[in-house]
Amino acid sequence: MTRFHSIIPLLLWGLVGAWISSAHAEVDRERLLAEPGIYGTFAAFALDDEWGRLEPSARIARLATLKGVVEQHRENVAIDLYLLRGLSDRADVLFGIHASELRDTQRFLLDLQSSRFGTHLIGVRVMHGLTKKPNYVPGFSDQMKTELKAPSEAGEKLYAIVIPIRKSAEWWELDQEKRTAMMREHTAVTLPFLKTVKRKLYHSSGLDDVDFITYFETSTLEDFHSLVLSLQKVKEFGYTRQFGSPTLLGTMQSLDEMIEVLAQ
Amino acid sequence: MTRFHSIIPLLLWGLVGAWISSAHAEVDRERLLAEPGIYGTFAAFALDDEWGRLEPSARIARLATLKGVVEQHRENVAIDLYLLRGLSDRADVLFGIHASELRDTQRFLLDLQSSRFGTHLIGVRVMHGLTKKPNYVPGFSDQMKTELKAPSEAGEKLYAIVIPIRKSAEWWELDQEKRTAMMREHTAVTLPFLKTVKRKLYHSSGLDDVDFITYFETSTLEDFHSLVLSLQKVKEFGYTRQFGSPTLLGTMQSLDEMIEVLAQ
Amino acid sequence: MTRFHSIIPLLLWGLVGAWISSAHAEVDRERLLAEPGIYGTFAAFALDDEWGRLEPSARIARLATLKGVVEQHRENVAIDLYLLRGLSDRADVLFGIHASELRDTQRFLLDLQSSRFGTHLIGVRVMHGLTKKPNYVPGFSDQMKTELKAPSEAGEKLYAIVIPIRKSAEWWELDQEKRTAMMREHTAVTLPFLKTVKRKLYHSSGLDDVDFITYFETSTLEDFHSLVLSLQKVKEFGYTRQFGSPTLLGTMQSLDEMIEVLAQ
Amino acid sequence: MTRFHSIIPLLLWGLVGAWISSAHAEVDRERLLAEPGIYGTFAAFALDDEWGRLEPSARIARLATLKGVVEQHRENVAIDLYLLRGLSDRADVLFGIHASELRDTQRFLLDLQSSRFGTHLIGVRVMHGLTKKPNYVPGFSDQMKTELKAPSEAGEKLYAIVIPIRKSAEWWELDQEKRTAMMREHTAVTLPFLKTVKRKLYHSSGLDDVDFITYFETSTLEDFHSLVLSLQKVKEFGYTRQFGSPTLLGTMQSLDEMIEVLAQ
Amino acid sequence: MTRFHSIIPLLLWGLVGAWISSAHAEVDRERLLAEPGIYGTFAAFALDDEWGRLEPSARIARLATLKGVVEQHRENVAIDLYLLRGLSDRADVLFGIHASELRDTQRFLLDLQSSRFGTHLIGVRVMHGLTKKPNYVPGFSDQMKTELKAPSEAGEKLYAIVIPIRKSAEWWELDQEKRTAMMREHTAVTLPFLKTVKRKLYHSSGLDDVDFITYFETSTLEDFHSLVLSLQKVKEFGYTRQFGSPTLLGTMQSLDEMIEVLAQ
Repeated sequence: MTRFHSIIPLLLWGLVGAWISSAHAEVDRERLLAEPGIYGTFAAFALDDEWGRLEPSARIARLATLKGVVEQHRENVAIDLYLLRGLSDRADVLFGIHASELRDTQRFLLDLQSSRFGTHLIGVRVMHGLTKKPNYVPGFSDQMKTELKAPSEAGEKLYAIVIPIRKSAEWWELDQEKRTAMMREHTAVTLPFLKTVKRKLYHSSGLDDVDFITYFETSTLEDFHSLVLSLQKVKEFGYTRQFGSPTLLGTMQSLDEMIEVLAQ
Repeated sequence: MTRFHSIIPLLLWGLVGAWISSAHAEVDRERLLAEPGIYGTFAAFALDDEWGRLEPSARIARLATLKGVVEQHRENVAIDLYLLRGLSDRADVLFGIHASELRDTQRFLLDLQSSRFGTHLIGVRVMHGLTKKPNYVPGFSDQMKTELKAPSEAGEKLYAIVIPIRKSAEWWELDQEKRTAMMREHTAVTLPFLKTVKRKLYHSSGLDDVDFITYFETSTLEDFHSLVLSLQKVKEFGYTRQFGSPTLLGTMQSLDEMIEVLAQ
Repeated sequence: MTRFHSIIPLLLWGLVGAWISSAHAEVDRERLLAEPGIYGTFAAFALDDEWGRLEPSARIARLATLKGVVEQHRENVAIDLYLLRGLSDRADVLFGIHASELRDTQRFLLDLQSSRFGTHLIGVRVMHGLTKKPNYVPGFSDQMKTELKAPSEAGEKLYAIVIPIRKSAEWWELDQEKRTAMMREHTAVTLPFLKTVKRKLYHSSGLDDVDFITYFETSTLEDFHSLVLSLQKVKEFGYTRQFGSPTLLGTMQSLDEMIEVLAQ
Repeated sequence: MTRFHSIIPLLLWGLVGAWISSAHAEVDRERLLAEPGIYGTFAAFALDDEWGRLEPSARIARLATLKGVVEQHRENVAIDLYLLRGLSDRADVLFGIHASELRDTQRFLLDLQSSRFGTHLIGVRVMHGLTKKPNYVPGFSDQMKTELKAPSEAGEKLYAIVIPIRKSAEWWELDQEKRTAMMREHTAVTLPFLKTVKRKLYHSSGLDDVDFITYFETSTLEDFHSLVLSLQKVKEFGYTRQFGSPTLLGTMQSLDEMIEVLAQ
Repeated sequence: MTRFHSIIPLLLWGLVGAWISSAHAEVDRERLLAEPGIYGTFAAFALDDEWGRLEPSARIARLATLKGVVEQHRENVAIDLYLLRGLSDRADVLFGIHASELRDTQRFLLDLQSSRFGTHLIGVRVMHGLTKKPNYVPGFSDQMKTELKAPSEAGEKLYAIVIPIRKSAEWWELDQEKRTAMMREHTAVTLPFLKTVKRKLYHSSGLDDVDFITYFETSTLEDFHSLVLSLQKVKEFGYTRQFGSPTLLGTMQSLDEMIEVLAQ
């Protein structure tokens, strides 16, 4: 099954190949994605009506500006792309951005939105969170600590899911010991899914209208669904007043894959 | 009563007949609609204002692209169509899609939205769920198990209804035994309606902002209404924090019927 | 006070007179409005911005298609019109439709929306309900039964009000006897208003996101307000989780009156 | 500081002066604003995008139709104007309309919206309420009754605030005596503000999705804020499930002042 | 990294320099920002789609009108600008306005919205609050009073955050002593952040649909996040029914910096 008109690949070829030499600029990506004290931003956009009516050549010209802005800012921020269209309501593309300072993220998004491609983007939702050292792990058993260190299965993941969470006032009023006990139970039920579902946590209180952003990657959505079901059954879930709304489900895309899909 | 201008049927004739030979490609449809481990997606769209202003011939040209995309993807996914216009708020058409992997569903919806027909579609709501083996039936009596196997009345159904459901945290905190007892009561009141109301359940936790998608087909809306009334009166309903919102009520349409209505 | 430019009445004259001979087709209207087992639909629409900018002659040409569609479908469905503009938020006109089957209602609304007038209508809200024999009246005293049969005052009513209602899970969990006792109290406070406020009840569970649609007609809005105040003070009201939202308040209009107002 | 281009005042001069002779038609205004049994409507509108792009002369031509419609209907309804732009979200102008019958209000709003000025108005919110004799005052002490009769300070007020209120089911279930006791406390804390904050109450149950519309006029917003703070601290406030949402805050404008501002 | 086309700085040069002599007019700014009894308004706007399609020269011409309106009104109101785009949902720019009277704020916003730049602004949210002498500080210990007087670290702050707050009816029903005790605990946990997070409080009851607007400035968002976390853990937080929604997070900009960014 061919997914786009035959002329597009040829036009895209130059576009996709043009930035190969820029790899050296991304020196900090590993650090930004691994360390605490980093700001993670999830910015979801819808494409406007006009995009659907553009000629392929006009789309490709605009997508070149997307490519330019992303490559330019990769010196300062780590940028990941997700295709939401068809899987999530209202939003079509999601940018995951990691930066040491939110103003670097703002600069990227300003340049993105003022690019020729960006004029077709309608901002739908932006959420920020901070990576931090684990709050509760120090109170866990040694065995659980060991299990938590097991790496997830190698290989690219297909799907990513972003679920914002807001806890109730009752949760924050609990003392640290009670919260640790509940988080131990919470963590225990996630252990069977460590291999197939990669997880990451961002702390958002004050930066956005949620307390946490939970981020998941998996190639096995059924396992992810089972993981969420398990999390809903532990006591800590009773202290959650927002889980999702929105749940953003998309497929992971390289910049070149995203450009190919959007050129269609 | 004739429902459209006399020229439309002639123009549609070629369109409707052109794909007859593609039936062999739908080999997996039965499996996708019957087995556990399948992803069901309900994607509701509104038609844009421009659609209402197109000439009949322009509509028919665009509907040919709808037909093309649906037929092309029927190799990988099972696609059902429902007409919501006049019966549900804001959305006009509903696609029910069953696939082994959600990325196949996404590919269909991407191609649909980038088709010439698709540029007139405004995404309103998309919900996903997973088919699974029954959770609670193993704990039911043999008699109930037998009754549940009774097939619904033969013959095409006229109406379909999609109702998303979210359970409360209290529900998930109950132990399996208590939930089974309540689901036994829930199931018992549905038995009188097995013949006239066909039901199907999808598990959604984590894939969307609901826990279940319940799907119904019937030719007797009064029976369906009585079934819902019965379900509201059992104890398990007290653990429901979202029932509907939206309730999607539509009429079942073959692809050709849908094209005929939309050509109007 | 003259309410529109002097040329409009002349243009309308032909329009209003043209369908007089179609009265025989409405043979079932009385049955549809009186019997149980009938589906009532309330469909509210806003007029688009373009409508306000059309020339009077263009409006009248389009209103002729409204008239045509309504007259054509009166063979199958009973259609009433209400003018919401100025009295309710966002919606301008309301169609009340009664039919033996919802697909007949859908056919009317499809034809309405694809008429030249209908392309100016923006769907705002559609609600369905089923007429049924009274649930609780059999448990009432003979005196109350007699009082309930008293007809409302003759003469045309000026205003109509549609209020959707959703009951709490606690309501549905009550046994029939307790609900009957509360409905007896509910009904008792409505008796003083039987003469001046006409009421009708539709059962909606499963057909829409509400449980009931309550419909009122009156020429004395102050009495209607007093009736609602009385209903808020009985115990049964505590089991209501949605009352209105939206409350649709409008004036009753014949098709010709509506055409005259919209031509303005 | 001059607030608009110098040509506008000249153009407005004729407009503002042209209706001076119509004052005699407003004979019922005093009665409509003072008596019980009158329907008060608050209709808030936003101006559309096109308004901002019109030439001054085009605006003035349209504002002449606003003036015409208001003057024409002042025979039947009392009309007040408030400028919300800059002080309230989304809405720009607010019309306060008092009438013996809501159909008179509807006629005014229909004519307003079909005027050339009205085609630029987007309906945002409309609320209705009924003036009634005080419910609870008969149960108050003589001293409180006397204090309540003290007139507010003379002189024009600058600001008006409209706050809709919805009471809980628990409130309506209380017996009249308990409600009177709480309203006595409610009224007592308002006495210090009688001089600087003018208040008016409308009863809305059934006419809209709120129970009351509270209307305030003041030149001292700090006093109004202190009054609201006092009202939030009495027991009766605990029975309020909606207070505001929206709160409409605007400045009071004569028709000529409003035309001058909108011509800008 | 250069953030805009090289021609823009040249065009902007004249614009940025042109108003230097107007500094003397801002004589009251210090007073407006420091004293009680001042009205603070936060008005958030989105830029319309057309803005993104304007040529740089057209943007600069429009931005000159922004500059003109701001400079003109600085005689009466203190105006601060914040760039939300990229950091907050839906809104792009935020104006913070301090005035002795809200009608002065309204006049500024009217002139802003009717300027050529303003026709591209879509009003998203406006909130008002009043500065007052501290309510609870008189009941605090001398040591806490001393600590509260410690100035925040010198130097410009990078980020500003606006969080509206609504308290529950239960909060307002508490007696002053209990509220003071809880506010003492609330204040104690904020002391470690006094140096790096500047705070300001506005009282809103009645002026808007919230009770307070809390305003923060910081260069260390991690400290701000920790401050909010601390505030969520004290007992007083349990009496909060709205915290944020929206949370407005942006970067602080001088008028010239804002013009430079928007010219891009």
